[in-house]
Amino acid sequence: MLSEEDNIRLTRVSRGTPMGETMRRYWQPILLSTELPEPDGAPVRVRLLGEDLVAFRDTKGKVGLVDAYCPHRRAPLFFGRNEECGLRCVYHGWKFDADGNCVDLPTEPASSNMKNHIRITAYPTYEKAGLVFAYLGPQDQKPEPPDFEWMRAPATHRYVSKTYEHCNWLQALEGGLDTAHSSYLHNNRLGDTLEFRQRDKAPRLDVERTDYGYTYISHRNAGDDGTYVRVYQYVLPANQMRANVQFNPARPSNNIPKHDGHIWVPIDDEQTFVYNWRAGVDENARLDPDYIERAEKSSGRGKDDLIPGTFVLKRNPSNDYLIDRQMQKTSNFTGILGVNTQDFALQESMGGADGRPICDRTKENLGSTDKAIIAMRNLLLEATRDVEAGRPPRGVDPKSHGRCRPTDGLVPKGADWRQVFADQLTCKW
Amino acid sequence: MLSEEDNIRLTRVSRGTPMGETMRRYWQPILLSTELPEPDGAPVRVRLLGEDLVAFRDTKGKVGLVDAYCPHRRAPLFFGRNEECGLRCVYHGWKFDADGNCVDLPTEPASSNMKNHIRITAYPTYEKAGLVFAYLGPQDQKPEPPDFEWMRAPATHRYVSKTYEHCNWLQALEGGLDTAHSSYLHNNRLGDTLEFRQRDKAPRLDVERTDYGYTYISHRNAGDDGTYVRVYQYVLPANQMRANVQFNPARPSNNIPKHDGHIWVPIDDEQTFVYNWRAGVDENARLDPDYIERAEKSSGRGKDDLIPGTFVLKRNPSNDYLIDRQMQKTSNFTGILGVNTQDFALQESMGGADGRPICDRTKENLGSTDKAIIAMRNLLLEATRDVEAGRPPRGVDPKSHGRCRPTDGLVPKGADWRQVFADQLTCKW
Amino acid sequence: MLSEEDNIRLTRVSRGTPMGETMRRYWQPILLSTELPEPDGAPVRVRLLGEDLVAFRDTKGKVGLVDAYCPHRRAPLFFGRNEECGLRCVYHGWKFDADGNCVDLPTEPASSNMKNHIRITAYPTYEKAGLVFAYLGPQDQKPEPPDFEWMRAPATHRYVSKTYEHCNWLQALEGGLDTAHSSYLHNNRLGDTLEFRQRDKAPRLDVERTDYGYTYISHRNAGDDGTYVRVYQYVLPANQMRANVQFNPARPSNNIPKHDGHIWVPIDDEQTFVYNWRAGVDENARLDPDYIERAEKSSGRGKDDLIPGTFVLKRNPSNDYLIDRQMQKTSNFTGILGVNTQDFALQESMGGADGRPICDRTKENLGSTDKAIIAMRNLLLEATRDVEAGRPPRGVDPKSHGRCRPTDGLVPKGADWRQVFADQLTCKW
Repeated sequence: MLSEEDNIRLTRVSRGTPMGETMRRYWQPILLSTELPEPDGAPVRVRLLGEDLVAFRDTKGKVGLVDAYCPHRRAPLFFGRNEECGLRCVYHGWKFDADGNCVDLPTEPASSNMKNHIRITAYPTYEKAGLVFAYLGPQDQKPEPPDFEWMRAPATHRYVSKTYEHCNWLQALEGGLDTAHSSYLHNNRLGDTLEFRQRDKAPRLDVERTDYGYTYISHRNAGDDGTYVRVYQYVLPANQMRANVQFNPARPSNNIPKHDGHIWVPIDDEQTFVYNWRAGVDENARLDPDYIERAEKSSGRGKDDLIPGTFVLKRNPSNDYLIDRQMQKTSNFTGILGVNTQDFALQESMGGADGRPICDRTKENLGSTDKAIIAMRNLLLEATRDVEAGRPPRGVDPKSHGRCRPTDGLVPKGADWRQVFADQLTCKW
Repeated sequence: MLSEEDNIRLTRVSRGTPMGETMRRYWQPILLSTELPEPDGAPVRVRLLGEDLVAFRDTKGKVGLVDAYCPHRRAPLFFGRNEECGLRCVYHGWKFDADGNCVDLPTEPASSNMKNHIRITAYPTYEKAGLVFAYLGPQDQKPEPPDFEWMRAPATHRYVSKTYEHCNWLQALEGGLDTAHSSYLHNNRLGDTLEFRQRDKAPRLDVERTDYGYTYISHRNAGDDGTYVRVYQYVLPANQMRANVQFNPARPSNNIPKHDGHIWVPIDDEQTFVYNWRAGVDENARLDPDYIERAEKSSGRGKDDLIPGTFVLKRNPSNDYLIDRQMQKTSNFTGILGVNTQDFALQESMGGADGRPICDRTKENLGSTDKAIIAMRNLLLEATRDVEAGRPPRGVDPKSHGRCRPTDGLVPKGADWRQVFADQLTCKW
Repeated sequence: MLSEEDNIRLTRVSRGTPMGETMRRYWQPILLSTELPEPDGAPVRVRLLGEDLVAFRDTKGKVGLVDAYCPHRRAPLFFGRNEECGLRCVYHGWKFDADGNCVDLPTEPASSNMKNHIRITAYPTYEKAGLVFAYLGPQDQKPEPPDFEWMRAPATHRYVSKTYEHCNWLQALEGGLDTAHSSYLHNNRLGDTLEFRQRDKAPRLDVERTDYGYTYISHRNAGDDGTYVRVYQYVLPANQMRANVQFNPARPSNNIPKHDGHIWVPIDDEQTFVYNWRAGVDENARLDPDYIERAEKSSGRGKDDLIPGTFVLKRNPSNDYLIDRQMQKTSNFTGILGVNTQDFALQESMGGADGRPICDRTKENLGSTDKAIIAMRNLLLEATRDVEAGRPPRGVDPKSHGRCRPTDGLVPKGADWRQVFADQLTCKW
């Protein structure tokens, strides 16, 4: 359990809060590139860490991310005109470029130099691998942009998607770092005795701290097959990387060896965007569109699973995720379709003491399988204290994690997983 | 009128408040039995006195009522698996029985005794007469379970139903103890001069305190017929019992002699469930299904009157209860169909000072027909002080009210109603 | 920019706040007359300056405006019976006339004189020119009722309409006193070089204080045509009057010389009703129904533009005002149809610091075209201080503004607009 004070410290992300300031030291995904499909196209609202912003792709393709409100009289820039390398407010025609400069101020007389004194808050952006990132922290602390291995994979071998989750970001991240639950929550074939996670439901966990966060390793007894070992990576503040390299008899359609991961991005204290990525482990592991759709559907976010025009699942709290109690009795542990939909069903309903969707961790009872979660919380608490002390928090330098990889597989009894997996742990991209 | 302090004291029901603690000394209805139709069926969310809970009927038919959140990491137990005499959390498989014991904790190693230290909050339940009751107070103060006469009637002679009301419980109870309004609000036949409540619209009230609350008696001049006397019973904290024994010329279809009543149960400070019951007064007063449907429809809650899958009336605040102003001019005092719908229309709109659906009683002007309401508030204030002083509040012992009965009828001029009604006031069940 | 203190002082309108008390010194429109179409018709809910009220037209046609809740037990009078010169509560039949007297109290015995001691809060009303006004201030400070020139025009030469705006009243009023934006926000013909407001987009403003508020005059260079001068009137607290007298080549269908105006009325701190009026300038300027519909449609509130049964635009925040980004690129500065819809799009989205729809003026950067807005704020701040000091605020006496008029037109170079417009500035009604 956490003290109420630490729970607040970890979960709140507004500017000026400990975690809010810490989050602002890392580049954060703000949009899929496809949300800004063309230069001078429609601006898009972005709410990030409790700040209301507007993003636009300018005439040259550069993404601007500026305050949602014009500095003149606070008119909403969402309705602005995106034209000639800038966003023009429709109230009085004031215009700003992607760097926040006022480049036109037509209501003032030609002799005025007011334009030179007006700026709009603008944050630096970086676009790569289908994502747009932004940095909301102090300029003199700005790290190099993100550079994960999956981002370096060819476009044919990776993809990204996005889903909306109505809860605080931390309980979503915790679900992603909690491997034990996959034996229960994600048991979609009741009675299956083949899948390793069903053969041993109480995994032993090792957590090894790194410069970027930690590697954690779950060990499950696979009987004559040896030990099924899963190596996850946690990169601060909210990246999870896992692998499906080992042939999985429970999911024959999923058998392209690949890495998967999530990045959880706080919209504000009570809402989260999840960016989901997948990447093949080498040249042979191409991810074709029909495979991608199959995999996304299995995760609960196939093309028919989202409310059109949003990133909200059709299976959501308003309809109890369309739980099917008969299915729950006979074939699927939860009765809910979609692996990540199952995650959402729990994460979005962990009521807080005050009725807000922020888990009340003062009432927890943690067990031995919560080791990774405890370690993550400690790393984040340390990171907030680093920021308070003026030190860069762990993992901001992309070099720290640019070559880290997850993996999984069988390890013969008595063997060392690092040796068995040595090849699988070497970056191919 | 009430002071603001007393209004708060009487209306707020969270744990730790004076009325919240008092309410917790009484057994409270939580569900219709039909909401948990079968062993190992789907769990049901229960919000009671501001607490979020989950109810389930276990393999043996016993109803469990437990905290809505798993004590491990606060996953919602609503999505849990109801199986083999317990509710299993779908996150990590922890399982609890109806008494709150942890009966399986599969993520811990076999050697762990953690299971013995883990409990979930669970409240005792009692099922009778189509209702499930629960007790949320201190174990050492737990009274015997409810035992009203109507609960002892054969199933063929009684039934229960349930409706949702979007307001504080006290103003709903007040409506139920206010007989004077039936001459106005429920005058569904404008110009009727037969019905006793239309013949005298300013009844005289007597209130006689009892061990369970009070008996109150309204006297209406019925001309040559004598006096029309109605005997209500109020049983703390929120039971009302009334009778339709006297032949009622205004409602020929309603002429089975029976008792009716409501129990108001606070969901929280701003929402209430009303449990409605009816019971025939003796063996001859069987309540057949078509009669029941007719009576419920007349009350505004027939089978087509609720939004399917809910206990919410279709006639509700969102549509002004489908008030028909033309009908109001010509035939029905309110223009609203359904006797209890008429009640809801008023009770759900008694705005509080702060815009919340809690009546602001500091602005009242009470008159002589409000005697019963004043007496009820005084009894409840006393009950809260009893609880604060460590004494059991009035009426917790079912023996105090197990033989009380309402009735109504004509009393010849000069006669004593107790003598005239002696037979009618003796329990048959 | 404003200090946070002044922003609060100007925007909050509940009873007891500085602006709330100031607003209560002026007659305020509460309804269109057509909302109470007949004597003894259905009562109507009115929320005004944060107070919940009910209006009814009594048997003699007089409009009553009373507290929304019966003084007996706070039952909602909206459901009341409007009959025989009074509104009767349906709970217990208590009845009140339009002056707030209790005229029937049937639940008390005939001997009771309780009726004489019971009153309901009632505000004086005044009906004229299709509007019902009310006065919510102290009786001994009540000014004469409103008497604007447009209200004196014959019914064939004027009309009024009403729209709902989901924002604080002050940012709506500011939009109405800001002539500069018409060159941008309301540029519905991109590339037009005829319209004067497109020929000079940085008007010079003069503001001249008056007994009722101010006259403000915008000067735009019209080249060989001289100067295009627009004369607005601002009458405290929230009246704007403007003119379309000058032939406008951009809107041939609008060329009946007329005055237009808005009155902004705070529902509460976060919601506003806008009353819109138009009046022909003389006998020849009759406003026929088809012309009116065309003009209203052009403003965005034609007969198909409102959600039926409400004053809410179909183009509203829930659908981003149906902005058409392609239209925005090619023909219309905003891509939004309807002149006042364009205003609403900005005004309803000026987010406050706290997420409430009250503009955060501490973050503004005002320019030279904001002169009229600054002057208006200063007048309102003065008015609040006048009220605090026990003095009547500016403009409460209708004689102060009964003969003021807006106008517009071309002024030859070197000429004085007052002389050129002398005839146009003389009331005809």
